[in-house]
Amino acid sequence: MQKTKVGVAGLGFIGPAHIEALRRLPDVEVVAVNDFGDEIAKAKAQTLGIEKAYGKFDDMLADPEIECVHICTPNFLHFPMAKAALEAGKHVVCEKPLANTVKEAEELVALAAKTGKVNAVHFNLRYYPLIRHMRTMREKGELGNIHSVIGTYLQDWLFYATDYNWRLEPDKSGDSRAIADIGSHLMDLIEYITGLEVVQVMADFATVHPNRKKPLKEVETYSGKMLQPEDYADVPINTEDYATVMLRFNDGSKGVITVSQVSAGRKNRINLEISGSKQTVHWCSESPNDVWIGKRDSANEVLMRDPALVHRESAALISFPGGHNEGFPDTSKQLFKEVYKAVREGKQPDNPSFPTFADGLRELLICERIIESNKKQAWVNV
Amino acid sequence: MQKTKVGVAGLGFIGPAHIEALRRLPDVEVVAVNDFGDEIAKAKAQTLGIEKAYGKFDDMLADPEIECVHICTPNFLHFPMAKAALEAGKHVVCEKPLANTVKEAEELVALAAKTGKVNAVHFNLRYYPLIRHMRTMREKGELGNIHSVIGTYLQDWLFYATDYNWRLEPDKSGDSRAIADIGSHLMDLIEYITGLEVVQVMADFATVHPNRKKPLKEVETYSGKMLQPEDYADVPINTEDYATVMLRFNDGSKGVITVSQVSAGRKNRINLEISGSKQTVHWCSESPNDVWIGKRDSANEVLMRDPALVHRESAALISFPGGHNEGFPDTSKQLFKEVYKAVREGKQPDNPSFPTFADGLRELLICERIIESNKKQAWVNV
Amino acid sequence: MQKTKVGVAGLGFIGPAHIEALRRLPDVEVVAVNDFGDEIAKAKAQTLGIEKAYGKFDDMLADPEIECVHICTPNFLHFPMAKAALEAGKHVVCEKPLANTVKEAEELVALAAKTGKVNAVHFNLRYYPLIRHMRTMREKGELGNIHSVIGTYLQDWLFYATDYNWRLEPDKSGDSRAIADIGSHLMDLIEYITGLEVVQVMADFATVHPNRKKPLKEVETYSGKMLQPEDYADVPINTEDYATVMLRFNDGSKGVITVSQVSAGRKNRINLEISGSKQTVHWCSESPNDVWIGKRDSANEVLMRDPALVHRESAALISFPGGHNEGFPDTSKQLFKEVYKAVREGKQPDNPSFPTFADGLRELLICERIIESNKKQAWVNV
Amino acid sequence: MQKTKVGVAGLGFIGPAHIEALRRLPDVEVVAVNDFGDEIAKAKAQTLGIEKAYGKFDDMLADPEIECVHICTPNFLHFPMAKAALEAGKHVVCEKPLANTVKEAEELVALAAKTGKVNAVHFNLRYYPLIRHMRTMREKGELGNIHSVIGTYLQDWLFYATDYNWRLEPDKSGDSRAIADIGSHLMDLIEYITGLEVVQVMADFATVHPNRKKPLKEVETYSGKMLQPEDYADVPINTEDYATVMLRFNDGSKGVITVSQVSAGRKNRINLEISGSKQTVHWCSESPNDVWIGKRDSANEVLMRDPALVHRESAALISFPGGHNEGFPDTSKQLFKEVYKAVREGKQPDNPSFPTFADGLRELLICERIIESNKKQAWVNV
Repeated sequence: MQKTKVGVAGLGFIGPAHIEALRRLPDVEVVAVNDFGDEIAKAKAQTLGIEKAYGKFDDMLADPEIECVHICTPNFLHFPMAKAALEAGKHVVCEKPLANTVKEAEELVALAAKTGKVNAVHFNLRYYPLIRHMRTMREKGELGNIHSVIGTYLQDWLFYATDYNWRLEPDKSGDSRAIADIGSHLMDLIEYITGLEVVQVMADFATVHPNRKKPLKEVETYSGKMLQPEDYADVPINTEDYATVMLRFNDGSKGVITVSQVSAGRKNRINLEISGSKQTVHWCSESPNDVWIGKRDSANEVLMRDPALVHRESAALISFPGGHNEGFPDTSKQLFKEVYKAVREGKQPDNPSFPTFADGLRELLICERIIESNKKQAWVNV
Repeated sequence: MQKTKVGVAGLGFIGPAHIEALRRLPDVEVVAVNDFGDEIAKAKAQTLGIEKAYGKFDDMLADPEIECVHICTPNFLHFPMAKAALEAGKHVVCEKPLANTVKEAEELVALAAKTGKVNAVHFNLRYYPLIRHMRTMREKGELGNIHSVIGTYLQDWLFYATDYNWRLEPDKSGDSRAIADIGSHLMDLIEYITGLEVVQVMADFATVHPNRKKPLKEVETYSGKMLQPEDYADVPINTEDYATVMLRFNDGSKGVITVSQVSAGRKNRINLEISGSKQTVHWCSESPNDVWIGKRDSANEVLMRDPALVHRESAALISFPGGHNEGFPDTSKQLFKEVYKAVREGKQPDNPSFPTFADGLRELLICERIIESNKKQAWVNV
Repeated sequence: MQKTKVGVAGLGFIGPAHIEALRRLPDVEVVAVNDFGDEIAKAKAQTLGIEKAYGKFDDMLADPEIECVHICTPNFLHFPMAKAALEAGKHVVCEKPLANTVKEAEELVALAAKTGKVNAVHFNLRYYPLIRHMRTMREKGELGNIHSVIGTYLQDWLFYATDYNWRLEPDKSGDSRAIADIGSHLMDLIEYITGLEVVQVMADFATVHPNRKKPLKEVETYSGKMLQPEDYADVPINTEDYATVMLRFNDGSKGVITVSQVSAGRKNRINLEISGSKQTVHWCSESPNDVWIGKRDSANEVLMRDPALVHRESAALISFPGGHNEGFPDTSKQLFKEVYKAVREGKQPDNPSFPTFADGLRELLICERIIESNKKQAWVNV
Repeated sequence: MQKTKVGVAGLGFIGPAHIEALRRLPDVEVVAVNDFGDEIAKAKAQTLGIEKAYGKFDDMLADPEIECVHICTPNFLHFPMAKAALEAGKHVVCEKPLANTVKEAEELVALAAKTGKVNAVHFNLRYYPLIRHMRTMREKGELGNIHSVIGTYLQDWLFYATDYNWRLEPDKSGDSRAIADIGSHLMDLIEYITGLEVVQVMADFATVHPNRKKPLKEVETYSGKMLQPEDYADVPINTEDYATVMLRFNDGSKGVITVSQVSAGRKNRINLEISGSKQTVHWCSESPNDVWIGKRDSANEVLMRDPALVHRESAALISFPGGHNEGFPDTSKQLFKEVYKAVREGKQPDNPSFPTFADGLRELLICERIIESNKKQAWVNV
C-alpha cells in the first residue's frame, strides 16, 4: 500500500491528537512535524516517533514527499500558514478558526478553490456518529420541519481568575473567546444537523473575570488547572467568559445558544436539543453514544451508537459494535478518514462530506456578526 | 382539633388537585366547593366528597364558616374573584396568574395589605424540597456570586395544530401563553432561588402553529391529547408556542430562559442550571428528587431529597425518607402547610415563606415586559 | 356521599402514611386511631386531626361505625390483630409481613375467606403505575417468554453498627431482616409483574455487622440516622444485612435478587430488569416515572408515566399528566382506592386487583424457604 | 526513535483492533500480520497497511525483527500459538482466554516465567481509567472493608436463535460461553478492583436457546446481527446464554454476578457495584467516563474521567482532558502502552501493572470451578 505522507505543524495540545488519529488510518503516514525552532521540533518528533522534524514551516512545505499539511498552531497563525501551504501545492487540514477575519478566510476559500487541493477544517465534533445520524434523520424528513434549537456548550477550565491561557489574549485569539472557541463548534453542529442557515443573531456577552492572573511561564491548553498561584501578573480581559445568542434561521425557525467557560463542574459539555414537527432529538457530548428521540404519541427513544441500528450514513463513522463506546479521539480519526479519501483522489470533492474552508469561513462570519450584535445590543443580519 | 374550614372555587384540572392536597393536612377541612351553576357544583361536590356545593361564588363567600378561599378558575376570573374574596374578609389562595394585568394585580396586593388577610399564589414548584435546598445553599453563600442562569421549560401538550384548550384564547388567557403559563413558573423559581431581580429582558417569540383547530365541545387541560380530529373549527392563534428571553439581573449577572409547548417528548420538563463563583447547581423537574452540584476541583455531587442530608429549611418540606420519591402532588401539600400555619394565626406574616400576591404581581410585571420586549425587538427594563 | 369509616392501628412511621393516603380518597374517612395506651393514642389523634382515639385495639374493634381496620403495628402484632379484626367483622388492610409464620398466615387467609371480608396487604410498590404497566405488557405478550429476572433492593439506613431499630431484633422482626423487610417487596413485584411462580431458591446471607450498638431509648424507623453515639448497649445480631438469592421459576426461567441494608449512598433503591424473548424492561424506584424498554433491532425506549401513553390498566393508577412526577405517597393512595372500591361493595372480590392476605402468605412462604436454603446451603423447593 | 517491532496473528474482529491501538503508540510499529494462508494474509495486510504478511504463524515467529507477538485467533488456538511464540523467544500479548484448560494455562505461565519474556493478556477493560481509579481508591482505603460486590454483564448479540458465531461451538470456544466470554472479564475486573480473591462459587446456568440456526457460510463476531434467515442448519447448543454466580471472597465478603447474551437492548453493558464500610462505588461500561460514589452521610458523588480529578495512578491512563470522552478503543491503547514499556526493558517486570498470563490462568481456574458448581449444583472451592 502506498501511504499518503503528511506533515503536522504545531505540537501543543491538538497537534499530537491529530498525529495519533492519523496513525490509526492504515493508508496515511505522518512523516514530518513542524514546531518553532529546530531544537523543539526535533525533541517533539523524537517523543512522537516521527521521522522528520522541521524548525521552519517553509522547510516542511518544501518537502516534496509531503502531500498534506495539518495546521495546529495558535489561532493567529492559521491564516498565513494555510495560505502558504496551499501556495506550496499541499492539501491542507486546518484547525479552527480558519483565520483571524472573515476577509482572510474568504481569501483562503478562494485560493483553495483555485488550487483545487483538498481543504478541510477540523470541526471534528461532526464526527460523533450520532451527530451524523441526527443530520441524516433530518435529511430523511424524520424530524419534520424544525421549530427550535436549544444548545449549550459549558466548560469550567477558565473558572478561576487564576486560570490562564493564550486563548485569553485577543492578539492571539481574536475579539471573541467563548463564542469563537466553543460557540463556533456549536453553531457548526447546529447548521450541519439542521441544514438551516442562521440569518439573524442577537447576543449578550459577559466577562465574569474582567481581570485575570497571568502566569509568568507558558502553559498548555487545559493543563492550566494544575497551576500554582505564584508568579502571576494582572491582565485585564476583554473577551467573553459567557455568551447567550438568540438565533433566527432562514426558514423562520428560532433557536438559542449559551456558552460558558466558567461553569463549575461542566468540564466540556455540549447539550443540543432540536425540535421538529415530527420528533425532537437531544444529544449531549458527555454521553455521546446515545441520542434521545422525543415523541408526542409514544414512548421516547434512546438510540445507542450501534452500527446495526443507526442510518447507513452514520454507521460509516463507527468502528466498534454497539455498547463499545467510542469517544472524542475517534471523531478526528473518522474525519481524517473522509478527508484522506479525497486526498488520495487528489482534489477537493464536489460535495465534500467533511467540513471545508467554506465552513471555516461560515463560522468566522457568524462569530463576527455575533460580536457585532453584542456591541450594538440589537439583532444583526448574518 | 379545630380544623380550618376552606372553600375551593373552580373544579377543572387544578381545583381538585388543591382539594386532594388540602385533605392531606390534618388541621384543614375543605367544606365547600364552587363551580358554575348549582347542578354542576352539586355533582362535583358529590364526586369529591365535599359537604357543601355553591353554584355562585358570592354565596360561598357569604358562608361564615369558610375562612379561606382557593381560586382555581380560568385565568381571567382570578382578579374579580380574589378581590371579592378579600372584600368578604377571607384569606385567599389564588392560582397563577394572579390577575389579567399588572394594574389589577397591584390593586389586589394593596387590598390584601389593607385587609391583613393571608394571601398566597400557587407557585407550587417552589415546594420541591430541592428547590428550597438550592435557595438555602445560595443564602448560605455556598454558590458564591451567581454568574449565569440557564432555564428551559418544555412541554408537548400543544404539539399538534389539533391540540386545543382555553389557554389558547387570549380573551381567557391573556396576551402571552407559553411565557405566562410556564415561563412565569420558571421566572419565579429563578428569582426565588437566586435572590436576584431581573432588571432587563430581551425576548423572541414564535408561534409555531399560527392556526389551530378548535374542537366544538369543551375539553379540560392536558386531556386534549385524546381528542379525535373531528368537529374542529379553524382558529388563528396570536400567542406564542415558543419563547426565548435573555435576562439581566440587578447584580449584573445574566441568564436566559427558553419555553416551548411544542417540544415532542418533553411532557413537562423544567431544566435549571445556576452557576456561581463557588459551585453550579442543576435541577430537572423530571427527576425532582436529585440536585446536581458542579465543582471545579473535585467530583461533582448528586444530592438526593433526603431529610437527613439537605439543609434544615428544605427538610421541613419533606415527609418521607430518602429514596422514597415525592413528586408534584406533594408540592401543593407543602405549600398549603405553610399557608395554613399563617391562616391559623389569622394574618399574613411579615416575611412569608410562601409565595404571595406580591410574587404574583412580580410575575405579571415580568411577563408584561417580556411581551413588550418581543414587540419592540429590544431590551426592556423591568 | 356516605363515606366509609376507617380505623388505623399503630402510629409509628407507616400508620400516619396510611392515614394521609386515605384522606386523599373522597369517599373514605379515618374516624379513629389506636396506639398503645389512652394517653399516647389521644395525643397522636390530636396531632393527626382524627376524631376518636383508642388506647386499646379491642375497643376500636368494638366501634360499630368502623368498617375497615388498618394494622400498622410492629411485625409481631400483625397476626393477632388481623385475626381479632376479622373476627370482629371488619375488613382488614394489614401491613407486611402478614404474620410471624406461614402457619399463622394460612390461618388468616382461611379466616378471611370464611368471613368474606375484604383483606389486603400493603404491598404498595405494585402501585407505581409503571409496575402495573410492565405487568400489563407481560399479560399482553409484549415481553414474550421471560428468560431472566435480575433484581436488587439496596438501602443504607443500617449502614453503621450504631444504626439501630426494632427491626434488628428477631423477637420483634423474625428470623430474617433484609429478605423479610425489603426482599419480600422485591419478590412480590417480580411475581406480580412476571406472573411466574418461584419454585426453587438458593440463598446466601451475610451479617455485615454481627454486633450492633442499641440505643437505650426507642427511635422510629428511618430516623435512626440522627442518633448520637451515646447511651448504646452492645447487641449481637442474627439477621442478615445482605442476601443474594438465586431463583428458579415454574416455567424454567431463572433469576436472582440481591438485597442489602448497608450499601452507602443507596437510600432505598430497587432495580428490576426482566428479559423476555421479545423485549427487556428495566425499572428503578429512584426514577419511578420512567421505564426502560430494551429492544434488539431498534432504538431502546424510555416510557414516561403518562396516562396518554401507558396501557389503560396502568393509566387507572395515574392522577396527574405526564411530566408531573408522582411518587411513593401516591402508591398507597392508589392501592387504597382499589381496596375501598371492594370495601364499599362489602366483600372480597373474586379476582382482586390489589394484594391480598394470600399474597402476604405467599411472601412469608418464600421467605421461609429462602431462610431454609441459606441454612442448608442448598437449593430448596418453595 | 527505535520502534519496537510487532507481529499480530489473527485478523478477525479483535486483531485489527489491536493493530489500530498499537499504531497510536509512538514507539511501536506493527510490521507483520499472520492469518490462515498466504492469500488471505496478504490481502488483509494490504487493507491494514502492514508491510509483511505471513500465511503461517511459524514463519512470522521466525522473523528476527519481530520482538513481540499478539495472538488474536479463535480461542482454541491461543495455547499452541502462545507456547510457540514463547519458545521462539518472543514477548507475547494473548487474547483471552489464555488457553483451553487450566493445565495448559499453567504450562504457559511456567514457560513464560522460564523465558522471562513479557507476557500479557488482553483484559483491556481494566484500562478504563475509572476502573483503575476505583482500584486505587480501594488500595488507599477509601472504600473501607468491602462488604459486597454486585456485577452484571449483559449483551444481546445472541438474542435470537438465528444468531450464530463460532463462539457457540464448544470445540472452538470451550465448555462455557457467557461465563468464559464475558463473565471472565467481569471476574477479572472484580478481583482487580477489590484486591480480593474469590474462594467459593455457586452457579446456575441457563441455555435459553437449546437449539440455534447455524448459517452455512462463516460470519465474524458481532456482525451476526445482519444475517438473513436463510441457509441455516440446526445446531444443538450446550453452552450457557445466561448465568448467575454467587461469590465468596477470601475475607468473608460476598458477591454475585449475572451474565447474559440474550438481554434485548443491552448491547454490551457491564454494571459493577462495590460496597465497602466507607463508601460504595458504581460504574457502568455504557458511561465509562463516570463513576458514582455512594455516601451515607453526605451527597453522593459522580466523578468524571478527568486527569485533574482522579488519582495519579488513573490519570496515567488518560490522554484527553475532562469532558472529552474516551472509550473502548482507548483501553487497548493504554494497556499496550504499559506492556510495551516492559517490552522495551526486555523482560516481564516483577510487579506488572498490566494483566499477565497468571491473570489469564486465574480466570480459567475460576471459570472451571463455576462450570463445576453448575454441574454439581453446589458451592465449589476455587
